[in-house]
Amino acid sequence: MILVNGRENSHINVTDRGLQYGDGLFETIEVIEGAPVFFQVHLQRLAEGCSRLKIPFPDINLLIHEVELVCRNAPHAVVKIILTRGPGGRGYSQPVSIQPTRIISLYPFPDYPANFAQDGVAAIFCVTRLGINPALAGIKHLNRLEQVMARSEWSGPKFQEGIMLDVNGNVVEGTMTNLFYIKDSLVHTAPIISSGVAGVMRGIVLKSLSDLGLPLIEREYGKEELLCADECFFCNSVIGIWPILRIEDVTFTKGAFTTLLQDKINALKQVDSGNA
Amino acid sequence: MILVNGRENSHINVTDRGLQYGDGLFETIEVIEGAPVFFQVHLQRLAEGCSRLKIPFPDINLLIHEVELVCRNAPHAVVKIILTRGPGGRGYSQPVSIQPTRIISLYPFPDYPANFAQDGVAAIFCVTRLGINPALAGIKHLNRLEQVMARSEWSGPKFQEGIMLDVNGNVVEGTMTNLFYIKDSLVHTAPIISSGVAGVMRGIVLKSLSDLGLPLIEREYGKEELLCADECFFCNSVIGIWPILRIEDVTFTKGAFTTLLQDKINALKQVDSGNA
Repeated sequence: MILVNGRENSHINVTDRGLQYGDGLFETIEVIEGAPVFFQVHLQRLAEGCSRLKIPFPDINLLIHEVELVCRNAPHAVVKIILTRGPGGRGYSQPVSIQPTRIISLYPFPDYPANFAQDGVAAIFCVTRLGINPALAGIKHLNRLEQVMARSEWSGPKFQEGIMLDVNGNVVEGTMTNLFYIKDSLVHTAPIISSGVAGVMRGIVLKSLSDLGLPLIEREYGKEELLCADECFFCNSVIGIWPILRIEDVTFTKGAFTTLLQDKINALKQVDSGNA
Repeated sequence: MILVNGRENSHINVTDRGLQYGDGLFETIEVIEGAPVFFQVHLQRLAEGCSRLKIPFPDINLLIHEVELVCRNAPHAVVKIILTRGPGGRGYSQPVSIQPTRIISLYPFPDYPANFAQDGVAAIFCVTRLGINPALAGIKHLNRLEQVMARSEWSGPKFQEGIMLDVNGNVVEGTMTNLFYIKDSLVHTAPIISSGVAGVMRGIVLKSLSDLGLPLIEREYGKEELLCADECFFCNSVIGIWPILRIEDVTFTKGAFTTLLQDKINALKQVDSGNA
């Protein structure tokens, strides 16, 4: 089921600025028993993205209603919200009256093998680099060519995720995930200041670390540092946490921090989806 | 008139990667008496963009036919070609079989006053900076949030264009134009290596300079250097060349180089559109 501005529809007008310029935002949310997980956190990030891009945020009750309508019969799925600046004329100038477009689509939950989360995955370093632009960093906007190009660098089952560096050589994130590593009992992740996406699951990991009284070191680091980690993992809203078993030829073991965070996040998910 | 994959249609599927990720390219072309001006150069750039993004280039004769069909009755207009990677599933992975979407739309020619080209325009420096990413620099792709944000910084008739610096403080281009300046009889422009669009009109200015035996200096420069120029101008495929009369509080006069290039490009346009 796809709702476009509240109506069942699978098409948008070609004048929509989401198509013309990638002028919009999106959220990708796990659905369990008809309920979008961490929905309030996703809505909060969407609102922040709207604020930064100056896209009027839609009526919150209308949006929640539409998402719930799309999700209601899904035992386990992914719901994607796209919010664009709506239709416009040619040229970058925004229309005087912005009428954002809401697109809410349900997708099957991806059939990742259970052992990706239990045992871990393999990753490569992507050649495609993330650009440096603080004005867009953190926002889950529709300008995603860097990720598209990075994801095209491998295919097949040998690797499950690609690690992206910025143009200065700092490790930032995975193509579809954020990335954490643990060294000497300290958890590290890249700051999302110059590039990268401030993932909802990244935010939940940060909060979980704080709740558990575990300090986080948020600073720039290079690939050599990552390869010396005691443990490391990817995270996003759909996969949760995937331990990293191997980055190219360097192997890792799933460690106690990763397991602790997985347990914590699974518990939070149960509470959030009303299944605790 | 709008053609989507050869059919008169004003809608695309919401699964199109042009919408989902800005995964595509565009060209904006002046139309004179039904003929797209510098059409071969635009097609060449579109093909280069496809090559860099690994989007299959459509059948060239089909594309030309569709563009000509859309333009044929237009005395003076703008035709926009959007080419996306086509429909796809959720996630950055490309579909195994890529079926690009062709969208060809006719727009009225913008009603810029004639004195913009004759006498010149006023510009501001935008606060929004261009990111640094060599992998995407030069390509006229659909990831245009930087330009959208920059163009939103002013409204009304006081300024006609905004000048964009990159995050390192180098002057790169206008929001919808490339930028040249002349100092001591030497023409300067920014290289399009780390950011910016390699405009078709920029290419035609470069070729015209070469034809006229005028050397070009292509190197990074800052705003202070621009403000000391003897003359400067914006260019793109729709406006041609606009002399710059004022950047914020600093005034300029339209100079001999700008006039010479305008005359040269007008002559090339006449030849290209078969009206010489």
